[in-house]
Amino acid sequence: MALLEEPIKEVLKLKNYINGEWVESKGEIRDVVNPVTGKIIARVPISTKDEIDATVAAAQEAYPDWRRTAPVARARYLFRLKELLEENFDEVSRIQTQEHGKTIDESRGETRRGIENVEVACGIPTLMQGPYSEDIAPGIDEWIIRQPLGVFGIIGPFNFPFMIPLWSAPYALATGNCIIIKPSSEVPNSQTRLAELADEAGFPPGVWNVVHGGRTVVNGMLDHPGIKGIAFVGSTPTAKFIYKSCGATGKRVIAQGGAKNYMVIMPDCNVRATIPALMTSFFGNAGQRCLSGANLVIVGEDDGFYNKFMDGVADTAAKIIIGNGLDEAVQMGPVRDEEKKTRIMGYIESGIQQGAKIRLDGRKELKIHGDWPDKCFLGPTILESVTPDMKCSSEEIFGPVMSVMRAKNLDEAIEMCNNCSFANAHAIFTSSGKNAREFQYRVVSGNIGINIGVVAPMAWFPFSGMKDSFFGVLHTQGQEAIRFFTESKVVIQRWI
Amino acid sequence: MALLEEPIKEVLKLKNYINGEWVESKGEIRDVVNPVTGKIIARVPISTKDEIDATVAAAQEAYPDWRRTAPVARARYLFRLKELLEENFDEVSRIQTQEHGKTIDESRGETRRGIENVEVACGIPTLMQGPYSEDIAPGIDEWIIRQPLGVFGIIGPFNFPFMIPLWSAPYALATGNCIIIKPSSEVPNSQTRLAELADEAGFPPGVWNVVHGGRTVVNGMLDHPGIKGIAFVGSTPTAKFIYKSCGATGKRVIAQGGAKNYMVIMPDCNVRATIPALMTSFFGNAGQRCLSGANLVIVGEDDGFYNKFMDGVADTAAKIIIGNGLDEAVQMGPVRDEEKKTRIMGYIESGIQQGAKIRLDGRKELKIHGDWPDKCFLGPTILESVTPDMKCSSEEIFGPVMSVMRAKNLDEAIEMCNNCSFANAHAIFTSSGKNAREFQYRVVSGNIGINIGVVAPMAWFPFSGMKDSFFGVLHTQGQEAIRFFTESKVVIQRWI
Amino acid sequence: MALLEEPIKEVLKLKNYINGEWVESKGEIRDVVNPVTGKIIARVPISTKDEIDATVAAAQEAYPDWRRTAPVARARYLFRLKELLEENFDEVSRIQTQEHGKTIDESRGETRRGIENVEVACGIPTLMQGPYSEDIAPGIDEWIIRQPLGVFGIIGPFNFPFMIPLWSAPYALATGNCIIIKPSSEVPNSQTRLAELADEAGFPPGVWNVVHGGRTVVNGMLDHPGIKGIAFVGSTPTAKFIYKSCGATGKRVIAQGGAKNYMVIMPDCNVRATIPALMTSFFGNAGQRCLSGANLVIVGEDDGFYNKFMDGVADTAAKIIIGNGLDEAVQMGPVRDEEKKTRIMGYIESGIQQGAKIRLDGRKELKIHGDWPDKCFLGPTILESVTPDMKCSSEEIFGPVMSVMRAKNLDEAIEMCNNCSFANAHAIFTSSGKNAREFQYRVVSGNIGINIGVVAPMAWFPFSGMKDSFFGVLHTQGQEAIRFFTESKVVIQRWI
Amino acid sequence: MALLEEPIKEVLKLKNYINGEWVESKGEIRDVVNPVTGKIIARVPISTKDEIDATVAAAQEAYPDWRRTAPVARARYLFRLKELLEENFDEVSRIQTQEHGKTIDESRGETRRGIENVEVACGIPTLMQGPYSEDIAPGIDEWIIRQPLGVFGIIGPFNFPFMIPLWSAPYALATGNCIIIKPSSEVPNSQTRLAELADEAGFPPGVWNVVHGGRTVVNGMLDHPGIKGIAFVGSTPTAKFIYKSCGATGKRVIAQGGAKNYMVIMPDCNVRATIPALMTSFFGNAGQRCLSGANLVIVGEDDGFYNKFMDGVADTAAKIIIGNGLDEAVQMGPVRDEEKKTRIMGYIESGIQQGAKIRLDGRKELKIHGDWPDKCFLGPTILESVTPDMKCSSEEIFGPVMSVMRAKNLDEAIEMCNNCSFANAHAIFTSSGKNAREFQYRVVSGNIGINIGVVAPMAWFPFSGMKDSFFGVLHTQGQEAIRFFTESKVVIQRWI
Repeated sequence: MALLEEPIKEVLKLKNYINGEWVESKGEIRDVVNPVTGKIIARVPISTKDEIDATVAAAQEAYPDWRRTAPVARARYLFRLKELLEENFDEVSRIQTQEHGKTIDESRGETRRGIENVEVACGIPTLMQGPYSEDIAPGIDEWIIRQPLGVFGIIGPFNFPFMIPLWSAPYALATGNCIIIKPSSEVPNSQTRLAELADEAGFPPGVWNVVHGGRTVVNGMLDHPGIKGIAFVGSTPTAKFIYKSCGATGKRVIAQGGAKNYMVIMPDCNVRATIPALMTSFFGNAGQRCLSGANLVIVGEDDGFYNKFMDGVADTAAKIIIGNGLDEAVQMGPVRDEEKKTRIMGYIESGIQQGAKIRLDGRKELKIHGDWPDKCFLGPTILESVTPDMKCSSEEIFGPVMSVMRAKNLDEAIEMCNNCSFANAHAIFTSSGKNAREFQYRVVSGNIGINIGVVAPMAWFPFSGMKDSFFGVLHTQGQEAIRFFTESKVVIQRWI
Repeated sequence: MALLEEPIKEVLKLKNYINGEWVESKGEIRDVVNPVTGKIIARVPISTKDEIDATVAAAQEAYPDWRRTAPVARARYLFRLKELLEENFDEVSRIQTQEHGKTIDESRGETRRGIENVEVACGIPTLMQGPYSEDIAPGIDEWIIRQPLGVFGIIGPFNFPFMIPLWSAPYALATGNCIIIKPSSEVPNSQTRLAELADEAGFPPGVWNVVHGGRTVVNGMLDHPGIKGIAFVGSTPTAKFIYKSCGATGKRVIAQGGAKNYMVIMPDCNVRATIPALMTSFFGNAGQRCLSGANLVIVGEDDGFYNKFMDGVADTAAKIIIGNGLDEAVQMGPVRDEEKKTRIMGYIESGIQQGAKIRLDGRKELKIHGDWPDKCFLGPTILESVTPDMKCSSEEIFGPVMSVMRAKNLDEAIEMCNNCSFANAHAIFTSSGKNAREFQYRVVSGNIGINIGVVAPMAWFPFSGMKDSFFGVLHTQGQEAIRFFTESKVVIQRWI
Repeated sequence: MALLEEPIKEVLKLKNYINGEWVESKGEIRDVVNPVTGKIIARVPISTKDEIDATVAAAQEAYPDWRRTAPVARARYLFRLKELLEENFDEVSRIQTQEHGKTIDESRGETRRGIENVEVACGIPTLMQGPYSEDIAPGIDEWIIRQPLGVFGIIGPFNFPFMIPLWSAPYALATGNCIIIKPSSEVPNSQTRLAELADEAGFPPGVWNVVHGGRTVVNGMLDHPGIKGIAFVGSTPTAKFIYKSCGATGKRVIAQGGAKNYMVIMPDCNVRATIPALMTSFFGNAGQRCLSGANLVIVGEDDGFYNKFMDGVADTAAKIIIGNGLDEAVQMGPVRDEEKKTRIMGYIESGIQQGAKIRLDGRKELKIHGDWPDKCFLGPTILESVTPDMKCSSEEIFGPVMSVMRAKNLDEAIEMCNNCSFANAHAIFTSSGKNAREFQYRVVSGNIGINIGVVAPMAWFPFSGMKDSFFGVLHTQGQEAIRFFTESKVVIQRWI
Repeated sequence: MALLEEPIKEVLKLKNYINGEWVESKGEIRDVVNPVTGKIIARVPISTKDEIDATVAAAQEAYPDWRRTAPVARARYLFRLKELLEENFDEVSRIQTQEHGKTIDESRGETRRGIENVEVACGIPTLMQGPYSEDIAPGIDEWIIRQPLGVFGIIGPFNFPFMIPLWSAPYALATGNCIIIKPSSEVPNSQTRLAELADEAGFPPGVWNVVHGGRTVVNGMLDHPGIKGIAFVGSTPTAKFIYKSCGATGKRVIAQGGAKNYMVIMPDCNVRATIPALMTSFFGNAGQRCLSGANLVIVGEDDGFYNKFMDGVADTAAKIIIGNGLDEAVQMGPVRDEEKKTRIMGYIESGIQQGAKIRLDGRKELKIHGDWPDKCFLGPTILESVTPDMKCSSEEIFGPVMSVMRAKNLDEAIEMCNNCSFANAHAIFTSSGKNAREFQYRVVSGNIGINIGVVAPMAWFPFSGMKDSFFGVLHTQGQEAIRFFTESKVVIQRWI
C-alpha cells in the first residue's frame, strides 16, 4: 500500500507563476481537498484583479522577444518540456489522481494525451508555414506569414486538470504568443507542477504564466485589452458567457461547453467488445468527461437482444471496482466533491420520478474497495425506460449515470442524436459499414465514434464540437489551434 | 457618347430573390440614385422581418438536398456562373459604375476580382478535403470531414457592391451551405443582376437568396437561430456591433471594418513608378476603399526629396480627369452621395483647423469632364503638415483625401503605422530589400504592401485585417473562407 | 438509327498540331478503322524523327513566355477549354466510340473524367503555392517556388484515347510547361479534336502540340535532351522500357503499366448490388481497362453461396447487349481490333487447357445487336475452377474475360491479391466494416475498392498503382501531377 | 590542448549493425585515417555481397511489424533519438572532425542540422496524413493512405558523414520503412556512433541497419529486388549511374550529385557583411560542400569597386586560421586526403595554364596552426581573370578554390549561372529587392540564396537541386522525403 500512502509533493500554499517567478498571491486562500481521503492536499489562492493585470503586463513585455525567437528555437523548449514530462510521467499522473480522484490509469492516459499535444507543437516549423504564390501577376508575388498576436488566456476545467490546458498552451507558445493559464481552483496542483517543469525547460520569464483563482481572474482576462483571445473549456452556460464577452470586446475565442453523448447500439454489433467500451465511456473518469457516454440507445424491436445486451451491461457495471485511484486495482474513483455528487443524485431521482426504472443504483449498491469515507463516491447507475424528454436524458449530468432508451431503427436513433442540444461526441456500435457511414454522414456532432466509446481526437486533430458543446470556429489541438493562435498576414510585393 | 447614354437594364422596382423566385417586397421603397446624373436608376425595397424570416425558412428547406449534392457537382454550378459572368462582363461592370459612380475601368477590376473568387471556389473538391490518419493506434483510423452548417447571411457594403459578397458567397455555396445576401440598399443593382445570373446558372431554389433592405434585415439575420453565421463588410462600429451580436447568440462571424492605411515613402523608392501607384491608392474609387491610402508618410529629413516628391504627387493628382465613370477617359468618379461628400469635406476642414496646410483642394479645384451636376463630385485633396493626432489622419475619411506626414526614419514611420487603431493595409515604397523586410516583419497590419498601393489579396488568399479593421479569426476568400463555412467533423473508427 | 449513321467529322488525313499550326506529316500513313463497322475513319501519319525534333524546338521556344504568364492567367485558358469541352461533349464522346468501339455511355464517362482533370487544373493558383517560413533564423526567411521545367512528352494508350492524356496535360500546362502529346496511332481522332478545341481556347502557339506516330516519336522524345520528362500509360513491358530509358537519360518519369485486378466477394456482400458492379468491372469497355476486374475470388467454403452467386453473375453477363456503341441500347462494344481479339481468345483457350471450366463462352455465345460484322466482337466470357498459377489468372488479358477462383477465407483471398505481380486496383465486396478495413490495410494495391468495381480515382486524387502496374514515385492527376510537373526551388533570403 | 589530445572512442575495428546486432564483417579491412594527424582512427570492413543480402533479409523481416507500429509510436523512437543526440552532441561532433577534418564548429553545425531532421520527422502523425473526400458522388467516399514500401538503401558521401544520411533516415523510418545505411568507407565513424544511439533509442532489430563497404554494397542494394528505393548523395557521375540503375530495375530513387555554385556580387551589396559570408561559402568545410561557392562573379564595369572588393576578399581569406579542427581557434581544416588535395591542385594548375591569375595561392601561402603534418592541408586559393570556359570554373573542384569572374550586368551574370551544367545553389549579394527578385525568378537552381553564402535548406524544406546536381523528382528532407518514402494508396468506398 506504499503507493496509496505516498505523500504528494508538499505544495501546501500554491503560488502564482508570473514572469518566471513564483509569487505569493494576496487573494483569499481556499483548500484543495482529495475527494477520496477528504484531506487537504494544497491551499490555493483566489488571485486579485491587480495580480492578473500584473501578469498580463509581464506577458506583454515578454512577448516581443519571444515572437522574435525563431520557431525552430521556440520548438526546442517544447522538446525539452516533452522530455521532462516523460521523466516525471508517474509523479505528474499521481498528482492528477490525488487532486481529482480519477484512477491512476486514467491519469496516465491524461498525461499521455497532454504530452502528445506538446509533441505535435514541436512540429511548429512545418506547421506554421504560410503559402507563397509567385507571379500573382507578372513580377508580383504574394504570401502569408502566420504571426502571433500577443497574450492569450487559457481557462481550464476541473475534470482534466492537467491535459486540457495543453490542448492550447503548446500551440500558443510555439507560434510565439505568451500565455496565462488559470487552472480550476478545485484542482490546481498538476498545473502548478507543469509550470515547474516549464520553468525547468527554460521558457523565458513572462512567456508561460499561471494565475490561480476564480471569476475575478476570468473577468480580469476578459476585460483586459492586452488579452488577444481566450481558450476556454467548461460548462455550456459559462462557455456562452465567455463567447459573448469576447464578442463584445472583439477578442478571438474558443469556448468548449458541455455534452450529452449518445451511444447507439445496433443489433449487429460485436457485443463482447462493445460492453467494455461502454464501461469506459459511461463510467470512466466517473462520468465526468465531455466525451462520456450519457444516453445509451439500443436499436431494434427485438426484446431478446435488448435484454441480453442490458444484462451484460448491468452485470459488468456492477462489478466495477471503486476506490482510491492510486490503487492499481481500482477501476473507478469518486466524483470531484460532495456538491457534485448531490447534483448527480438529483438527476437520478428526477429520472425515477419522470418514469425511468432504475436498473443499477450507484447510490445504494456501492462497495468501496479500501477504507475510505464514502462522501464523494457514487457507483455506476443505470436508468432504463428513459425517454428523450426527461431531464436525465437531456441535461448534462456529468456523473456515472447511463440513461437507456430504445429506438425502432437507425433512422430514429439518428433523429434522437440530432434532437439533442449538445453535439460533442455521438457514437455508433455496429459491424456494418453501411450503418457506420449513415451515422457518420447524418449525425450532427463534432466528434463521431464508430465502435469507439470515448471519441477523443488525437492531438493532431481538432477537438471538435457543435451546437451547445462549442462556440467558435477553430478548435483546440493541432493545426486549428495553430491557426487560432496566429493571424494570417498577407504580403504583396512588387519590385519597381 | 453612346455608352454614357445607354440606359441601364430596366430594374425600376427591385424584387427580392427568394427560393428561386423573384418576389415583390411589402416593405418601404427607396430610390437608388446614380451619383453622377442624379437620376433614379432603381427603386429598392426595405424588406420586413417577415420577409427575412421566410427567406431563412426557404434556405433551411433547401439546405439538406444542397448539402447532399456532391462537391464536384456543386462546383459545376460555379463553373457555369463563371461562364455567365464572363459573357456578361461588360454589362455587370456598367451596372456597378451606374449605381456607385466609380469608373468603368474600376468596375471591370471589381468584376474581375469577383469572378476570381468564383474561380477559386470551383476548386472545392480539392479544397474541401480533410486529413486522414491511418492507425492512430493499431486498427483505429481517424479523419476529418468538412461539413457545411446550414444558412449564412452575407451583408455587403456600398463601396464594392458587386465584388464583396463574392468574397464569401462562392465558398459558402461550394461547401454546401445556403446563403442570403443583403446588398447595400444604396447600390442594390449589381447584386440583383448577379442573382439573375445565378438563377440562370441553375442553382436550386432556396440555395442563393437576395433580400434587399436595411437594419431590419440585418437584425432579422442576427436574431434568427437558423442563421449559422454572418460575413459582414462595412464600417468599424457596425462590424463591432455585428461581432458582439454574433457573440451573444453563439454564431460564427467574420466582421470586416474600416481602415486608415499608411503609405510609407522611403527616399530610395522609384519615384516615377511610385507616384502613379499612389494615385490609384489614394484617389482610385474616389478613396472609398478599405484598401485606399489615407496617410502618406515621407521618410527622411531631406527637404529636397520631400519637395520634389510632393510636387510630383500634387501635379499628378491635379491632372486626374473627373467625371462620369462610363466615359473611358474619366479617371475618377464622384463619391457615392452628397451626405458622404459633406462628411468628407468636414474632415478636410477639420484638418485645416487643426493646422494642416491644404496643398490641393478638391473642393475648389474641381473641373468636371462632361456636363454633369457637381453634387457628389470632389477632387483629389492633399493636406500637408499633418500630424498623427489630427482627426484627418486618425479617423477614416473614406474619400479622396491624402494626409501627408513626415517621419525621421523608417523606425518612426513603422511606429506611426503601429499606433494607428486600424490595421488593414499599410504599404512601403522602397527599392531596398532590407527596408521592405523590416516593414513586413514589424508593421502590424492584415495586408502589407511592398511597392503596392492597393494591397488587395488575390482570391486564393485571405482578405486579412487586424485591430479595428477586423473582428474574427478566419477571413473571407480562399481556404480560410472554406474553413469558415464548414465544421471539422472528426471521425474515429475501429472495427471490432 | 440516325445516330448510328451520322458521319464522323471529316478527318480523313490527320495532321500534326505543332506550334499552333496544323502541319502535314512526311511520315508513312496508316488507316484508322472503326472496329464495329470496319470502315476507315481516318488516316494517321507515323511522324518522323525530324518532325518530333521540330516540335520539341517549337515547344522550347514557346516555353519562356508561357512560364512567365501568371498562373491565374494560364488557368483562364483551361476554364475556356472546359467550356468548349462541355459545348462539344456529345461530339467528343461520339468520336471516342467510333475510334475505339466502346459504348457511347462509356465514352461520355470518359469525356466527363477528362473534363474533371481540366477542372482541377483550373485551381492552379492555389494548388501551385509553395510553403513560406518566416524567421528560419532571426531575419532570415525561406520559401519554395514551384517552377515548371520546360517541355514534357505525354504518350497515350489505345483504351482511353481521350481521357488519359488529360490525366497529365492540364497540370503540365497549368504549371507553365509546354506539352507534346503522342496519341495511340490506333485511336488518334479524339486527341486531334481535343487539340482543335485547345486551339480554339487560345493556347499560345507551341504550348500544346500533338504529334501522331509510333516508336520513332516515342524514341525521339526519350532521346531528346529538351524533353524534361515523360508521362506514359500503356503495357507493363513498355512502361518498364520507358522508365529505364528515362533513368538512363536523367528525365523524370511516370510510367503506368498493366494490371490484373482481383475482385474479392465476401459471403456477406449485398449480392443484388454487387453483380451489376461486377458487370461494369469485368465487361465494361470490353475489359480493356487497367481498372477492369480480371480475377473474381469467391470467399468461403459454402457451395450454396458460390453457386447462387455465380448463377447470378453468369445469367446477367449472358444478357449483356453487344453491338455498335453509338446505339444507346448497346451495353458492350467490340475489342479494339482483330489482333487483340485473337490474343484474348488465346488466353481463353489456355485457361481451358490448364484446367479451367468455361461457364460462359463469349467466342460462341455471341449475339450482335444490329447488322455488324463480327470481326472484333467477343462476348463476356467466364472461366471457373481457375487457379492462380494459370496464365489466364496471372497475365493481363485485357478483354472481357472473368477468371473465377475460390478462397477459403479473407486471409487467403488477400494473399492471392498480394501474390499478384500487378497491383493496380483490387476490390472487396462486403457489408462488413471489419472485412473492408482488413482488405484496405493489408492488400498491396495502388487503388483499393470497397464495393467499387471500377476503382477510378477522382481527378483530384492521384491515379495510383504499385508493383508492375506503376514505375515512378508521383502519379498522374491532381496535386501529385502538379508536383511532378514542377521543381521545388528553395529560396533563402537575408537582408544585410 | 586537452581537447586536441582527447582520444576518440575506441572503435578500432568497426562492425556492421544488422538486425539489432553488431556483426563482424568477413570483408577486407581498410584504415580510416584522421587527415590532420595522419593517424589510423578506425578500421572499416568492405562488406560482401552475402552480408548486404543478409541485411536486406533482416530488414524485410522487421518490416511488417514496424509498419504496423502506429506512426505516433514510431515517432517516439525518434523523440528518444533526438534526446540522445542532444546528450551526446559534443562527442558526435568531435567524431566528425576527427574522421573528416572539418572544424569542430562546422561539425557542431552538421550535428545540429542532422538533429533538425530527426525533429521534423517527429511530426510524422501530422505529416503523413492523406486527404479525405466525402461524397465524391452521393454515398461514395475516397481517401489516401500514405503507406511505406519496405526497405530502402541510404548511401552517404564523405563530406558530411553524419548529417547526410539523416536527410533521409528519419523520414524513411517515421513512415514505417526499414533502412540500410552505407556510410562512406572513408568516414564511417559517426554513422557507427549514430547507430549505437539508435540502438539505445530502442528501434526494433532490423529496422535501422548499417553496412560498411564500397561498390559491392552499393551494387548489392541496386540489384536486390527487396530494396524498394535508394537515396544517394555523391558525385554527379555516380548519381547518374545510380539513377540509371534504379531506372533499369524499377526502383524509386533520389540521386543528388555535384555542384558548381555561383556567388553573384552586385555593386550595391553590403560589402562588410558579404565578405564573411563568402569566406564561409568558399572555404568552409575546406570547400568540400555541394553548397560551397565555387565561382565568384563581380557584376559591373567599375574597376574601383572590383579592386576594393577583391582586396577585401583576398585579405580576409589570407587570414583564415588553418589547423586541427578540434582546436576552437581553427577556422579551416584539411581536405579529406592527399588524393583529393592532388586533384584540387590540378585544377588550380589548369586554371593558371588556361590564363587565370593566381591572387592567393593556398598551395604556397599556407601556415598551419599547430604542429601537424601538411599532407592534407591546402590554403584558400583565389584565381582571378577566370572565364566560364576554363576547367576551374566549369568542373567541380570540391576544395577551397575561388574562381573570380566579372559580368557586365545582372543579365550577364544570370546567363553565366544558367549556362552552368550544375544547378545546386546559386546566390546573389545585393541590397536591392529588384535584383534579388530577378535572380530568384530567372536563375535555374535548386536552391537560391539572397545574401546567403551557404544555401542550406532547413530540415522542413526539400534539399532541392536541378540539372546535373540532381536526378529524380522528390528530394530529401521534410515533406518531400515523406512522400518519397511512401506510396499513395487510394481507397474508394461505397456501402451498398
